[in-house]
Amino acid sequence: MKVINTNKQAYLQQVKQQNISTVLNVIWEQQSISRVEIIEKTGLTSGTISNLTKELIQLGIIREYETVSGAVGRRRIMLGFNPDPYRIIGIDIGRSTIEVVLTDLTGNVLLSVEENTAHLRGPDQILAVIAPHVNRMKEKAAASGGRVLGIGTAVPGPMDLEKGIILSPPNFPGWDGYPLREELTERFSLPTHIEDDSCTCALAERWYGVGRNSRDLVFITMGMGIGGGVVTNGELVRGTNGLYAQVGHMSIVPRGETCVCGNYGCWETVGTIQAILKRSGGARTMDELKRLVREGNPEATRCMEDTLAYLEMAIINVFAMYDPEQVVLGGRLYPYLSDYIVELRQRVRQRTFSFVKDRVQITSATFGTSQSVIGAAAVVFGKLLAAPLDTLFDER
Amino acid sequence: MKVINTNKQAYLQQVKQQNISTVLNVIWEQQSISRVEIIEKTGLTSGTISNLTKELIQLGIIREYETVSGAVGRRRIMLGFNPDPYRIIGIDIGRSTIEVVLTDLTGNVLLSVEENTAHLRGPDQILAVIAPHVNRMKEKAAASGGRVLGIGTAVPGPMDLEKGIILSPPNFPGWDGYPLREELTERFSLPTHIEDDSCTCALAERWYGVGRNSRDLVFITMGMGIGGGVVTNGELVRGTNGLYAQVGHMSIVPRGETCVCGNYGCWETVGTIQAILKRSGGARTMDELKRLVREGNPEATRCMEDTLAYLEMAIINVFAMYDPEQVVLGGRLYPYLSDYIVELRQRVRQRTFSFVKDRVQITSATFGTSQSVIGAAAVVFGKLLAAPLDTLFDER
Repeated sequence: MKVINTNKQAYLQQVKQQNISTVLNVIWEQQSISRVEIIEKTGLTSGTISNLTKELIQLGIIREYETVSGAVGRRRIMLGFNPDPYRIIGIDIGRSTIEVVLTDLTGNVLLSVEENTAHLRGPDQILAVIAPHVNRMKEKAAASGGRVLGIGTAVPGPMDLEKGIILSPPNFPGWDGYPLREELTERFSLPTHIEDDSCTCALAERWYGVGRNSRDLVFITMGMGIGGGVVTNGELVRGTNGLYAQVGHMSIVPRGETCVCGNYGCWETVGTIQAILKRSGGARTMDELKRLVREGNPEATRCMEDTLAYLEMAIINVFAMYDPEQVVLGGRLYPYLSDYIVELRQRVRQRTFSFVKDRVQITSATFGTSQSVIGAAAVVFGKLLAAPLDTLFDER
Repeated sequence: MKVINTNKQAYLQQVKQQNISTVLNVIWEQQSISRVEIIEKTGLTSGTISNLTKELIQLGIIREYETVSGAVGRRRIMLGFNPDPYRIIGIDIGRSTIEVVLTDLTGNVLLSVEENTAHLRGPDQILAVIAPHVNRMKEKAAASGGRVLGIGTAVPGPMDLEKGIILSPPNFPGWDGYPLREELTERFSLPTHIEDDSCTCALAERWYGVGRNSRDLVFITMGMGIGGGVVTNGELVRGTNGLYAQVGHMSIVPRGETCVCGNYGCWETVGTIQAILKRSGGARTMDELKRLVREGNPEATRCMEDTLAYLEMAIINVFAMYDPEQVVLGGRLYPYLSDYIVELRQRVRQRTFSFVKDRVQITSATFGTSQSVIGAAAVVFGKLLAAPLDTLFDER
């Protein structure tokens, strides 16, 4: 429910925040824009734009620069995001690795570290590995005069977002009921957000990848599991139980195998790395399977063909259900499928409504294996653009 | 993009409209509510609520009434929607029938007419049938001192909503490119809206059915085609090309039959009335099939079992993809499947995530065969609640 606050001071602050959010979104979309264009696009007065942009420049969120264009060398003052002085820390807690990054405001990675944590178990052990990296990044940011706006953290779902608590994620022992957000906030004295790792993958695209100009996208991440994140009209969709876009659990094999979720015939039962290897005729790794396919091994070839057929069917369903501008594919499995993406796109196009055939876009994840951790940072960036004053002045 | 208008008069009007919208939504959700409760729920001041409710009562949108409760007979002044004096006209243009209704503001049908139009073809012939009914309803409304707020029209998609134009709907010759909204607006001198008929079915639930307290629902309509309408957080979702929730075109039969949409193995290839009858072993109508099943005919029984298995798989996918509070089933096929709904619910529950099993809700359409036309009226009601001033003072 949209309510206009009736305490005058709070109300004016709310109006201001909304206007700043509008202006920042326009600048972000356009990358480089003049004040006159901002006025045109937002409908705000030149006085308001003049004041707000001045303030945003002082705060260091945006900056001015001059462009010279045309034969007469017309000079124009443009505005764009200022990568300095703000910093964001992104954390990705995976089932076998952790990744921590320090980024600037525009998503550039300034520092990044990845560690194998397959031998560790539960929050205490994992956070002990993460902590020194986060502290080092905080120091690094401070040393260069930067201020860390917050920490975004990607974790396997499901979770209770409101309480910041992890809920019984499959194959992730020791985390059920863990109050991750509170723990991180206290440990690092920074505003902290947690988010499902399929959703952070989608948010990485929405803010720093293809989503800058594409406000309806579906991200599919394939690896030991298969997850989905959906951005509709620029916003992440969550569903009633935080289980929106469980694309890995759509049923695509009638009378198929039983899945960890309780259902059978889910895409996950045939589409994950372990499911693929199981029917590969002996390959123990995806690299081995790839080699076997290249050598013309019939069982391996058949296995790869089936994998692509299932993927094709899943993508068809994703287009039928969400009607997105594009579907973006990523995850640890994806590098082994990317050679087939042109063919896949063709096959999907042949199977969609005639009047949208040419619009079907299937692309590769912009950030490869760092998709989720970049998306964790993007969570904080998204908060900044939605509620700039709250995010900037959340002094914890 | 949310912009606050900077022309002061327009701005104040915008704030007022937003506040009225908030108040109307709260009253609608609660059905009966005191001013104090409205203040609590909206955060608006008592002065604002006092003024706005006074105005809304004068306008005839809401009304006051007294309740007596408790042992001491405490009297309270409550507010609720006033079914009078506003009226809405709903039109449903189907492939073989048209339906027109006159409703009050709360969705009660005051007058209703249905006509078979299977022998007619194209907009001119169909609109010639509709026109006298609409005019009669306008007269009827005027005679009782009611004012018709607008016309909502359900039509087979796809369409260009912005331009109000129908786009090449399958099996609906003569309608491609037809400017339906403009034509109806001119003919009846009333603000007119058009909407996809699967979406109107969902909107009927959202405003007048289960959606009053359930803001995330998926409506599935099954008949000669299979369509879906999704309400997320109270809002209809449309997708990039207006093709959101083409549930009939999700692929559920690997290497299945070719579909009208260009794909193969779509749910529509096995789930529509004609597809079911084709594999029924000779039944020409659903009534005949039902009789054959009751008589224990093995082919008919098998056909019905398969139909339910496909429906189950489709519903499982709808839950996996949209995570709705509930799935509502309707359409001309549904009465033949409704006997199985308890069993279906059980089967779906067995196949969903353990922690949401108990929350899986599958229900029957509230308005039966009139779902779409009631939803057409609900389109206008939804406009009133979203933009009350624009809707009330749109004098065309």
